[in-house]
Formats: sequence, C-alpha cells, structure tokens
Amino acid sequence: MQRIIVLRWGHRFRDERLTTHVALTARAFGASGLTLADVKDEKIQATTKKVAMQWGGSFDFRMGIPWKQAIKEWKKNEGVVVHLTAYGENIQTSDVLHRIKATKKDIMVIVGSQKVPSEFFSEKVSDFNVAIGNQPHSECSSLAVFLDRFFKGETLKQEFEGWKIKAEPMPHGKHVIKR
Amino acid sequence: MQRIIVLRWGHRFRDERLTTHVALTARAFGASGLTLADVKDEKIQATTKKVAMQWGGSFDFRMGIPWKQAIKEWKKNEGVVVHLTAYGENIQTSDVLHRIKATKKDIMVIVGSQKVPSEFFSEKVSDFNVAIGNQPHSECSSLAVFLDRFFKGETLKQEFEGWKIKAEPMPHGKHVIKR
Repeated sequence: MQRIIVLRWGHRFRDERLTTHVALTARAFGASGLTLADVKDEKIQATTKKVAMQWGGSFDFRMGIPWKQAIKEWKKNEGVVVHLTAYGENIQTSDVLHRIKATKKDIMVIVGSQKVPSEFFSEKVSDFNVAIGNQPHSECSSLAVFLDRFFKGETLKQEFEGWKIKAEPMPHGKHVIKR
Repeated sequence: MQRIIVLRWGHRFRDERLTTHVALTARAFGASGLTLADVKDEKIQATTKKVAMQWGGSFDFRMGIPWKQAIKEWKKNEGVVVHLTAYGENIQTSDVLHRIKATKKDIMVIVGSQKVPSEFFSEKVSDFNVAIGNQPHSECSSLAVFLDRFFKGETLKQEFEGWKIKAEPMPHGKHVIKR
C-alpha cells in the first residue's frame, strides 16, 4: 500500500483552526503524517497529538521544515509529489488518480492556498497537479476527497489502534465509549 | 434531483476562514446555498458572493436566521434534515446515504462543531445523523465528502453559468481563462 504524508504550505497563525482541521483530516482519512512547512505552531501540534493519543493510531506531526528541503528529501527517497490545486487535472474527468496509483510510490500531498509559489505547479516540484474540481474551495475539502477516493473509502471504517475514546455510530443520540 | 442547502451552526468570528471554506465547499460541490445560523458575518457573505460572481453559478447565502427557525421552516416545507457528525451512522459501513436518497426530498445539511446542542442528535431536529467516518476531523471535510458521494462526483465537473473566471485544467502550470 502506498503511504501518504501531507505537506501543509503557507500556514499563518490566524489559520490555526483551518490547519488543525487539515491535520485531523489527514489523520482521519488515512494519511500517515503531516509536515507543517516553514513555520512552527505548538498549538496545532498539541491538538493533533492529543487527538491521536485519545482516539488512537500513530500520526507523525512535524513542523518548521523548509518546504524545499521537505520536497527534496522526499524525492531523494523516490517518493512522488502530488499538489492539490484548482488549476490541476480534474480528478473526476481525467485519469490522474489512476496514474498516481500506477507509480506505486509513496506520496507527498501538498496542500497550500491561493498564493502558493508558482514553482509548485512545475515538474520540478509536483509530479502531479490534481484538482478536486476546478473551482475554488478549501484545502481541507480537497485533501478529504483526495484521500477518500484514493483509499476508496476504506479508511473511513478503520479502527485506530490503542484508542481511549471511540464514537459508537448511532442513528440518533451520541454515544462515546471510553476505556 | 434533490436540492441541498447547508446550515452552518456555531460560527464565531475567529472562524472566518473556516466558515468561508465551508461556504465555498458547499458551492463547489453542488449545494444550492448556505445559511449561517444565528449570526451575521458580512465578510464571509462578501467573499462568497464575490467567488460566485467571478466563477459563476448562483449560490444562495443567508445569515442571521435562528437555527430553530431555519429547521422549522425547512421541515414545514417537507425537507429532510441531515446532521453531519462523527457520532452518526457511518457513510461507509451503513446504508444511510441510500436511505437519504430514497426520501427523494430536498435536504438541509447541518454542519456544526464539537459543541453542537444535544438536540441536534435527536429525531426532533435531525432525520439522519451521518458520520463521514467516526473520527474527529472537520466540518469542511465532512461536507465535501458527503456532497461528493451524494452527487457521485458529478458536481466536480459541472460548468458554472455566467463565469467570468475559469481554471483550465493542466498537468503543469496554471492557466486562468477570463472573459
């Protein structure tokens, strides 16, 4: 199985909740970890670690690594880079997801914002530019749908090892199991 | 075709970017509109309207309507209410999406936060509680995946009427068409 890690570019402190949601989405939908490029944000690290500790599984959160370095190291280890952007190949109308899977390599998924460096779109950085629809919306939504489709929904039913809290699915009401 | 509108509960001003992303996700993935419950936030309204004006389509943004009133009116008009929550029926392992479609009614999708009122889980408010996986992540991600699955990805290739800006899908580079 191809392993996926997320590179979150362009985080600013006012984006704390948004980036936290990106990290939690990465975890919940089956990515192995997230690297916060260029900056450090202890609060997001703490929230992500706390969720992983309570709800289980292992999630590799890193921060403060310059994006160029993160990508260079990833490529040196023969991983491919997928940039999620509204300007890329449409996941619904193209065969881009198929081609990404066909590489059989581990994947770094870059999620940025409207203002990513233009290099992100070039072959030097991104092996694939993938659009979750060609409309502006959210890096959070793009990541969720990319992972949902990549793993064919399988990660939505995964059990996380070592959980202390678990939600028991219910048609009505709210049931939490603790141990 | 069942029409979908989104009810965004629990918006605080510090969540401006997150709620904007929820609104843009609603639009991009095929919802007809979004109602910001209880509060007004002119900035989000402006951003959402601007995107719809430039990128096309019609999107019905409302705000400041008390959530109880919004739901009451929706139910009076024979719509069903779907609450997205980590505690609901898992969209991957249950037939909940099938049952929602079988109602053939228009749908109000509630997206909240961890702290939604407990009434949201009850039959009085929500006809269906749906979990996009039973892990904590993001209302943005939940909405995106719910809509992607509901519309079977079709809305990711929709053309928005009256667009002034359009992204031309490309493997590399960034190409914007303006008219």
